[in-house]
Amino acid sequence: MSPRDAKPRLDLSGRVEMTHGAGGRAMAQLIEAIFKPALANDFLAQGNDQAVMPLPGPGRLAMSTDGYVVSPLFFPGGDIGSLAIHGTINDVALSGAVPLYLSVSVIIEEGFPLADLARIADSMGAASRAAGVPVVTGDTKVVERGKADGVFISTAGLGLVPPGLDLSGDRARPGDRVILSGSIGDHGIAILSSRENLEFETAILSDSAALHGLIAAMVAAAGPHLKLMRDPTRGGLAATLNEIANQSGVGIVIEEAAIPVKPQVAAACELLGIDPLTVANEGKLIAVVDPAGAEALLAAMRAHPLGREAALIGTIGEDDQHFVQMRTAFGGGRIVDWLAGEQLPRIC
Amino acid sequence: MSPRDAKPRLDLSGRVEMTHGAGGRAMAQLIEAIFKPALANDFLAQGNDQAVMPLPGPGRLAMSTDGYVVSPLFFPGGDIGSLAIHGTINDVALSGAVPLYLSVSVIIEEGFPLADLARIADSMGAASRAAGVPVVTGDTKVVERGKADGVFISTAGLGLVPPGLDLSGDRARPGDRVILSGSIGDHGIAILSSRENLEFETAILSDSAALHGLIAAMVAAAGPHLKLMRDPTRGGLAATLNEIANQSGVGIVIEEAAIPVKPQVAAACELLGIDPLTVANEGKLIAVVDPAGAEALLAAMRAHPLGREAALIGTIGEDDQHFVQMRTAFGGGRIVDWLAGEQLPRIC
Repeated sequence: MSPRDAKPRLDLSGRVEMTHGAGGRAMAQLIEAIFKPALANDFLAQGNDQAVMPLPGPGRLAMSTDGYVVSPLFFPGGDIGSLAIHGTINDVALSGAVPLYLSVSVIIEEGFPLADLARIADSMGAASRAAGVPVVTGDTKVVERGKADGVFISTAGLGLVPPGLDLSGDRARPGDRVILSGSIGDHGIAILSSRENLEFETAILSDSAALHGLIAAMVAAAGPHLKLMRDPTRGGLAATLNEIANQSGVGIVIEEAAIPVKPQVAAACELLGIDPLTVANEGKLIAVVDPAGAEALLAAMRAHPLGREAALIGTIGEDDQHFVQMRTAFGGGRIVDWLAGEQLPRIC
Repeated sequence: MSPRDAKPRLDLSGRVEMTHGAGGRAMAQLIEAIFKPALANDFLAQGNDQAVMPLPGPGRLAMSTDGYVVSPLFFPGGDIGSLAIHGTINDVALSGAVPLYLSVSVIIEEGFPLADLARIADSMGAASRAAGVPVVTGDTKVVERGKADGVFISTAGLGLVPPGLDLSGDRARPGDRVILSGSIGDHGIAILSSRENLEFETAILSDSAALHGLIAAMVAAAGPHLKLMRDPTRGGLAATLNEIANQSGVGIVIEEAAIPVKPQVAAACELLGIDPLTVANEGKLIAVVDPAGAEALLAAMRAHPLGREAALIGTIGEDDQHFVQMRTAFGGGRIVDWLAGEQLPRIC
């Protein structure tokens, strides 16, 4: 390496400046000092404007993208970096795909502390390595102070759907079972308590997690019986079930008593007047499965660390109005509707 | 469709509200009314959190992503929507890949006019259809007023590199030729004049364009001779040539007289005290090719509408310092360095 190429170490006590997004030496330095070491892998190391990877197969390609604008950037149980990796891995994997590659686009506000940016990049790298899904290519942009809010991240993901698997939101049929992988409300309440400086007796952590390992176990145990999988993020379980009901043209009946909610989350929801069914999750999924596969699926889920509390929570029915209904713990019933307004902005 | 599912038409005289990002009915309505019709294709119509597509082949996968924060959002010759489609198609195609699929993540500021959002979505759709590369999946987020600047877009793209083709920034060797596809500086000067309300006698339009058709013709004409392709965006031709020199460990000598610059762009640059070599382009590329392929490559480029002004502008040489040097029109010489500071923030 010649003296001209030598990159001085970036002083992490500094802040992001507009030149860090200008396509010149400062940008190269930011990427060399912060993103390349955090995300290091052979594809990213190609150093071109795109990464080139071997073609996987056989199967079909699954592609997904999500933007992350969560506030605050660091929250109990995670941060925007790990969330951006987990969320897109999950969206790819919910098709039954094995997630293979990720891309990352980072938009940074001028003046953002370089140390915080490094912390976010390190968190992305750790989440990516733990999941075994590399970030193969990326981009950074900088906008003026007051034109963004710290950092926004958009990730895209690519995966391979194994031959013979065909999951889709329109495949739920009357008689199918609805299975939830674990307790709901953790992520939303963690964000809310962190944002409002609420203190609960027991810390509530985000459930942010990569679900592709759990999903692989589910596909292995009940592949041909699986109809669809979804993760109840923005809008919570209520929105996800209504989406499925509309997309498949069916009704859904769920049992309140069967839905796991952690006691401290239930208490926080009651205190805040929030319905846990509408609170975002970032490490949970629901699966719709035909009855013949339900038992094997539940057993496989409960054998996985991220599905230990998996529960059969309801059944698909016929309903021209595509209602989602809940039988309450007290024997009554109610309609579970989409949330009308905005409960928790910038939850993910 | 049941009455409950019927989506009222979105009133496009309105503005984006926080509920449009909340994962509920308002968000579904925004997507149904604005993005789905604008981007319509069979993959997007799957309506799941990911799109599933047939596996292409044979060859290798190319994946790229870019964030777009250009200001203003609408400029002479394009807007952030078409730019976000063209830019990512180009980054994928510059590997020699045939671009196949795109994803789009849109971050919107509360209060942004719905009509402008529709205009941007329509522009994305038109650019995507014209290029024959569908947007197969997407995501929208809304942040509070003052926490973004209208609209930011991150696109990711996927393509297939044909067997036998292996382009990379580290493959330039002494003796190779450097070819530029057309005039430089148009995009940057169009943005700058639009931002500063400068009026020139002749309108200067952005060169924003999808280059994959030109690239396919280049691969067909000179595939085995091609070493690498790059698009001189942020930082301009100066940054791109320095990147190549560093990555390949070579020197580059270019001829000022051979570099096409439109008279009105040259005049604007002179007036503004800007070096056109450092100004961003969005529809140009440079190729490094071994001498045996240079003539066929130039001929193929000049036969394509986007390469009519293609020119041989320089030669790769040996240089331990990895300098880029230019022989000026007056017979002198100078070093072409990276831009030191920030000339044109938010150019793309």
